[in-house]
Amino acid sequence: MKLLAIEASSQAASCALVEDGTLRAEYFLNCGLTHSQTLLPLIEQLCREVGPLEQVDKIAVSSGPGSFTGLRIGLATAKSLGFALGLPVAGVSTLLSLGYNLAGLAMDGLCCAALDARRQQIYGALFSLEKGVPQRLMPDCALSLEEMAEKIAGCAHPGQPVFLVGDGAALCEAAFLKRGLSEVRLAPSPLRLQRASSVAYAALETGNWLPAGEILPCYLRLSQAERELQEKTAAQNG
Amino acid sequence: MKLLAIEASSQAASCALVEDGTLRAEYFLNCGLTHSQTLLPLIEQLCREVGPLEQVDKIAVSSGPGSFTGLRIGLATAKSLGFALGLPVAGVSTLLSLGYNLAGLAMDGLCCAALDARRQQIYGALFSLEKGVPQRLMPDCALSLEEMAEKIAGCAHPGQPVFLVGDGAALCEAAFLKRGLSEVRLAPSPLRLQRASSVAYAALETGNWLPAGEILPCYLRLSQAERELQEKTAAQNG
Repeated sequence: MKLLAIEASSQAASCALVEDGTLRAEYFLNCGLTHSQTLLPLIEQLCREVGPLEQVDKIAVSSGPGSFTGLRIGLATAKSLGFALGLPVAGVSTLLSLGYNLAGLAMDGLCCAALDARRQQIYGALFSLEKGVPQRLMPDCALSLEEMAEKIAGCAHPGQPVFLVGDGAALCEAAFLKRGLSEVRLAPSPLRLQRASSVAYAALETGNWLPAGEILPCYLRLSQAERELQEKTAAQNG
Repeated sequence: MKLLAIEASSQAASCALVEDGTLRAEYFLNCGLTHSQTLLPLIEQLCREVGPLEQVDKIAVSSGPGSFTGLRIGLATAKSLGFALGLPVAGVSTLLSLGYNLAGLAMDGLCCAALDARRQQIYGALFSLEKGVPQRLMPDCALSLEEMAEKIAGCAHPGQPVFLVGDGAALCEAAFLKRGLSEVRLAPSPLRLQRASSVAYAALETGNWLPAGEILPCYLRLSQAERELQEKTAAQNG
């Protein structure tokens, strides 16, 4: 079974092909280009090497939370390809896929996946890494650094390491150390950001495969435009 | 500082660009194509996205042990680019770079890096993963599975996990479990094989930067042709 995975939820873009559980190819780019310019050429290059799109059986995509624009590009790409090729698609939580960056490795540790949501807020989730599979300890949330620190303090055993992944990891590290959580550790650079291979493995273990048209993004918050519209409407009505 | 890393020592081929410690791009292919066909186009594609080769400051390459042909392709590529651009090159032990697949993550564990050298032999090395940096416990060796199992038994504390990386990992797992080493664990698929990003990080921490012309492969064993010549000469002389 060949699975194409697509990740464009944040600053990096990547695609991967996993065949019967083995990573055949992964192209990862984190160089500030817009995903609308890089993502499809990246998938095209990958298919040129590992075989045509027509041989793909399923598509997995990071469905949020994350950058609103990035998610739209990733989902539009996955849904279009899934629709055109008639393939089932799974939308995977960006935060769960970040947890899969550490799957099979760290033991007796926690994984805090955090994306910078601006204004001292993160999109975050907490996973236990026992037995190599990320086990969810809380749903994906938009929350403050303070609130996440409290959740970690409530979950971690004394001395248990807490690995930080995601583009909010460095933000969390500084904030959590200040709050006395001494066991937090930044995941190393190649495993810190979202990767399409992790989206693939998360989908293989937890994926809800649906027709392309049914896949929806999970933003967790209203977009800036929607927020401003709400405020304007409230002001007019008030 | 921009570092281009090249890995072609075994079944997969990859290239990566690391800028000031951050992974900017990594292209990884494990689909049975010969590296002589895939490696240079892969580097060309990567440079098209992250910037021209002329902006690269250093080159790191996996210098062995590994497939004789793969190593020659990787080293010829790295040395040619280094020579043409006048850049310093570091040859990195393939086994040490495999240890860096797990850098910064597993704690209080060992890492056994193993490449299949055929005939129940491996090219292997053992690293301790304390504090996130692979610390070498033995030099790179060509040895039997039996000999590696003994070395692990002599180094591992009771209950300490031993992560297996490299294309000989599955071979080792079966052999070591049979010999009663119950704490061995296959590294997950995305971290099991050599990756150019790990070559880059190993070079950044341990690299001996030299003019391109001075980089040599480290085969650990004579090639089949050399072995046959030796046997023929010995037979003629005997």
